[in-house]
Amino acid sequence: MQLLKNTISNIGKLDYAIMENVQKRLDNLTKPLGSLGRLEELAKHLAGITTNEKPCVKNKVIFTLAADHGVTEEKVSAYPKEVTHQMVYNFLRGGAGINVLAKQVKARVIIVDIGVDGKLSGSGFKNYKINNGTRNFTKGPAMRREEAVKSIETGIRLVEEEIPKGVDIVGTGDMGIGNTTASSAIIAVFTGKKIEDVTGRGTGINDAIYKNKIAVIKKAIEVNKPDPNDALDVLSKVGGYEIGGIAGVILGAAKNRRPVFIDGFISGAGALIATRLAPQVKDFIIASHCSAERGHKSALELIGLNPLLDLNLRLGEGTGAVLAMNLGESSIKILNEMATFSDAGVSESNL
Amino acid sequence: MQLLKNTISNIGKLDYAIMENVQKRLDNLTKPLGSLGRLEELAKHLAGITTNEKPCVKNKVIFTLAADHGVTEEKVSAYPKEVTHQMVYNFLRGGAGINVLAKQVKARVIIVDIGVDGKLSGSGFKNYKINNGTRNFTKGPAMRREEAVKSIETGIRLVEEEIPKGVDIVGTGDMGIGNTTASSAIIAVFTGKKIEDVTGRGTGINDAIYKNKIAVIKKAIEVNKPDPNDALDVLSKVGGYEIGGIAGVILGAAKNRRPVFIDGFISGAGALIATRLAPQVKDFIIASHCSAERGHKSALELIGLNPLLDLNLRLGEGTGAVLAMNLGESSIKILNEMATFSDAGVSESNL
Repeated sequence: MQLLKNTISNIGKLDYAIMENVQKRLDNLTKPLGSLGRLEELAKHLAGITTNEKPCVKNKVIFTLAADHGVTEEKVSAYPKEVTHQMVYNFLRGGAGINVLAKQVKARVIIVDIGVDGKLSGSGFKNYKINNGTRNFTKGPAMRREEAVKSIETGIRLVEEEIPKGVDIVGTGDMGIGNTTASSAIIAVFTGKKIEDVTGRGTGINDAIYKNKIAVIKKAIEVNKPDPNDALDVLSKVGGYEIGGIAGVILGAAKNRRPVFIDGFISGAGALIATRLAPQVKDFIIASHCSAERGHKSALELIGLNPLLDLNLRLGEGTGAVLAMNLGESSIKILNEMATFSDAGVSESNL
Repeated sequence: MQLLKNTISNIGKLDYAIMENVQKRLDNLTKPLGSLGRLEELAKHLAGITTNEKPCVKNKVIFTLAADHGVTEEKVSAYPKEVTHQMVYNFLRGGAGINVLAKQVKARVIIVDIGVDGKLSGSGFKNYKINNGTRNFTKGPAMRREEAVKSIETGIRLVEEEIPKGVDIVGTGDMGIGNTTASSAIIAVFTGKKIEDVTGRGTGINDAIYKNKIAVIKKAIEVNKPDPNDALDVLSKVGGYEIGGIAGVILGAAKNRRPVFIDGFISGAGALIATRLAPQVKDFIIASHCSAERGHKSALELIGLNPLLDLNLRLGEGTGAVLAMNLGESSIKILNEMATFSDAGVSESNL
């Protein structure tokens, strides 16, 4: 608990003085005022987070956290739960979506077993398994409160372990069959919206399974009565280890003034946990994209985030985060490499 | 006129057989069906255009066409018209937005003087000047009909000249003080919408200039009476050389089965010209982004295009195109590099 408390109390504010200087530079670049829209906002935001007028975006690190969910017993997914396990091996061999997209932008992918059911063999991943998947939360809490804290603190540690190796921007990602069920439950609790309105078809379930998924979430909330004013209560009762881990990655990145590009639906649930624990962390988050999964938009709205991309993605793993990181890099290149009006001898606006 | 006619009559159709094969491969990759959303559609689209199940996206070429507009006499812009000239030099020195963003994705930028007012010195650009800017179209046609044809044929030639050097995907871009005025006029004529609804603030004009800009476009249309059923009439009366050139780049790319990523507002007007001349060209166009400039959405809707990005951009030059090309590259990497379920030993959906 001490690490979590210390981390939260060491999250600072954006550096508005630096942001003002960056705005001045942006306004002097050879383009109409503000004409690079969200790229300009992003450059300024990254400068405010990093307290650097010329932020570096070279070292991009994605944390892809894998865990299992006891609620898969209730048949809420189109895929057997073994897929979590199998996909970790796919990550390690470089065959998954996140590997391909991360390679394109030269991002490092850190694969973490934070709660996969069963022992993973081989190397190339971090073994921070808290338990062999969560318990079935239709029958009681998904995890103990101490495990919820441990999952968040694991996320914080993950960031801090990587920093000496070079981390300029951070991305979050997930893998876990059943984790849209947990995320919808979390989002329903915090937003107060109807479960139907924040529950989607995850991996692509049919009508019958979708109806069951909604009923399962309803039951989980009735059985556990998670307290929306206590994020650790929500995480422990209807969450997942990777969701807690993502909350931790967000808090750890913020404490270390690293911009954190959150991925889609599962990362949105993690960001809700993080921002309910530490509202000031919001300033360090970039919403990479709006997921196709129903409920993501509501989660981002509650946090107050406006996503950069809207490409109908719903894969997770960090794939959306890595696409948005590329825009982050574009924004910094604009800031650092474009000529100013005086450099270029271009006339300024008459107005 | 012969080149234009030949080009149009040699624009083919998407290769639906190839697209079906690509869809099968996408459906076998280790991800839930369709979960990479628009990236999957894009990969399939690029395959259908190139008739290649594993399209290459290595050689990216942006054509940035510069020209002046006689209508700047009417004080429709925030910047003096000399800026067109000055910005070409900025392009040649690598200091503009398009240079910086193209460098990030290793795209070649071809700078073309297709109608800049005054002689440009130095090298590093293509001199295909048709005239020293268009005429003030509040007083008669912007250009002769033969010049309109010549501008389009110049665009076609530009593509064909680059193909031997390697062109996998094409992007369009523009530079020309006054060209949002011409583009709004074109979009108003084709969409039949009110001028106010398709006219924005371009480089960032104030209320008084904005009011004047609308009045100027109204007058141009009244004076010239462009015929919406005759795209060459519209281009010659209220268009611009770079707009015709962009239409030509689009037609030339399509004829050579190269995907063409169109940029924002000005490229949207060029795409309207191209698609009114040859409706089948639409299948070869990717709408890179929705510009912040009012009227762009209407233009894309009329063509039937759904933009990939929405980042509040309104710089032009090809900056939005180059950002979207990067997504094109992502989509092809997904298609070519991800493991299939059987490669990876991952269980498939139960459904």
